[in-house]
Amino acid sequence: MAYALYYWPTIQGRGEFVRLALEEAGQPYDDVGRAADGPDFDAVAAVLERAGAVHPPFAPPVLEASDLLIAQTANILAFLGERHGLAPGDDAGRLWTNQLQLTITDWVVEIHDTHHPLGPSLYYEDQQPEAARRAAVFHEYRLPKFLDYFERVLGANPAGDAYLVGDRPTHADLSLFQVIAGLRYAFPRAMEGAEPAHPRVIALHDRIAARPRIAAYLASERRIAFNEDGIFRHYPELDT
Amino acid sequence: MAYALYYWPTIQGRGEFVRLALEEAGQPYDDVGRAADGPDFDAVAAVLERAGAVHPPFAPPVLEASDLLIAQTANILAFLGERHGLAPGDDAGRLWTNQLQLTITDWVVEIHDTHHPLGPSLYYEDQQPEAARRAAVFHEYRLPKFLDYFERVLGANPAGDAYLVGDRPTHADLSLFQVIAGLRYAFPRAMEGAEPAHPRVIALHDRIAARPRIAAYLASERRIAFNEDGIFRHYPELDT
Repeated sequence: MAYALYYWPTIQGRGEFVRLALEEAGQPYDDVGRAADGPDFDAVAAVLERAGAVHPPFAPPVLEASDLLIAQTANILAFLGERHGLAPGDDAGRLWTNQLQLTITDWVVEIHDTHHPLGPSLYYEDQQPEAARRAAVFHEYRLPKFLDYFERVLGANPAGDAYLVGDRPTHADLSLFQVIAGLRYAFPRAMEGAEPAHPRVIALHDRIAARPRIAAYLASERRIAFNEDGIFRHYPELDT
Repeated sequence: MAYALYYWPTIQGRGEFVRLALEEAGQPYDDVGRAADGPDFDAVAAVLERAGAVHPPFAPPVLEASDLLIAQTANILAFLGERHGLAPGDDAGRLWTNQLQLTITDWVVEIHDTHHPLGPSLYYEDQQPEAARRAAVFHEYRLPKFLDYFERVLGANPAGDAYLVGDRPTHADLSLFQVIAGLRYAFPRAMEGAEPAHPRVIALHDRIAARPRIAAYLASERRIAFNEDGIFRHYPELDT
């Protein structure tokens, strides 16, 4: 099966969590917005308004798989995880992996909101004082809370602390890699302070980055660079 | 099987989406925080720190089902939906129901953030000017966008517009009922303006409210009243 991914072509954004799963699974996919002759935003937007769709998506990312249109990042990852061995096959393991993925989803919202506390409808420049306040609270309370949690989850894994679930990588590990990579880009000073107390999380990041398919992907042109239009933005004034 | 639900005892919050599913399914459950002799916050907090837990939850709600501890609202609802007929049995239907539930999850975050734009670590009183700005943006752009979306989903359902998925209620319908009920409580003026353009969504709310088990639940003492500690808060200054 060949997949089609609909996501904004100039940012990693939430689409990146899907791209990482497709890459690790070795599945070919058409990244629809990234046309040979340049970014095609219209092709991405069109999937939201496709005539006759009985399962219309609210927002990208959207994955097309044969006659299925699937949206919501964690939902797409549950689907890919089941199909391509990126989640355990038993119910308890599948639920646990999904639970971790949804906790990462919550974290990503909070990271995004450090620069968009008033929501997605205004530019950063229109909410800078609010962003400064929200980022300070994030660094003081929320960043350590989430890092502590995933450090604890790794330590509690009966199969060892190499991965979040069992003894092989799941979509939750790939997503946690992406969050750590993004946090390092956005908040290098905050992460420099936070990393020593979270060695398992950092080791997981490095372990995922070194997987052959992920390493090849990260070195390729398919990996869009972090930038100040995505979820993880490096605004030095927010890195306290 | 008897379930135990761990959630803060004095608010509906995210636990309410789980309570509604348990009530509609006719499943008995121990609402652990609501002890006979009064609210027991410690019993809820303790589940987050349970010694030896291999699947530690990040936050309530948490559902205990035999030897499973399941967290993340949408994850709990997927589990209950599968077990108790509150989601279709086929893969495509299950994914679609989960997708709608996750879109409701996103909406709930944005509703919560109208009064907490700087995050959960500060009181409303410490972020009132920011809340006023965020609520205004919510009313102008986001409330109509989400309402339009669910109105469209109902209209696109090949089985008719009585429910979101197929011709019987799923956990997504129960959750949409709860969001509409909450929005009416929090923003009566905004909803008075918005409701006429969204007749299917409002009819769905009324249809769910009239289901025998839901109606009995809503009239019982098990239903906590909306209040200014939960997700849906009636601050008249935010209802524009």
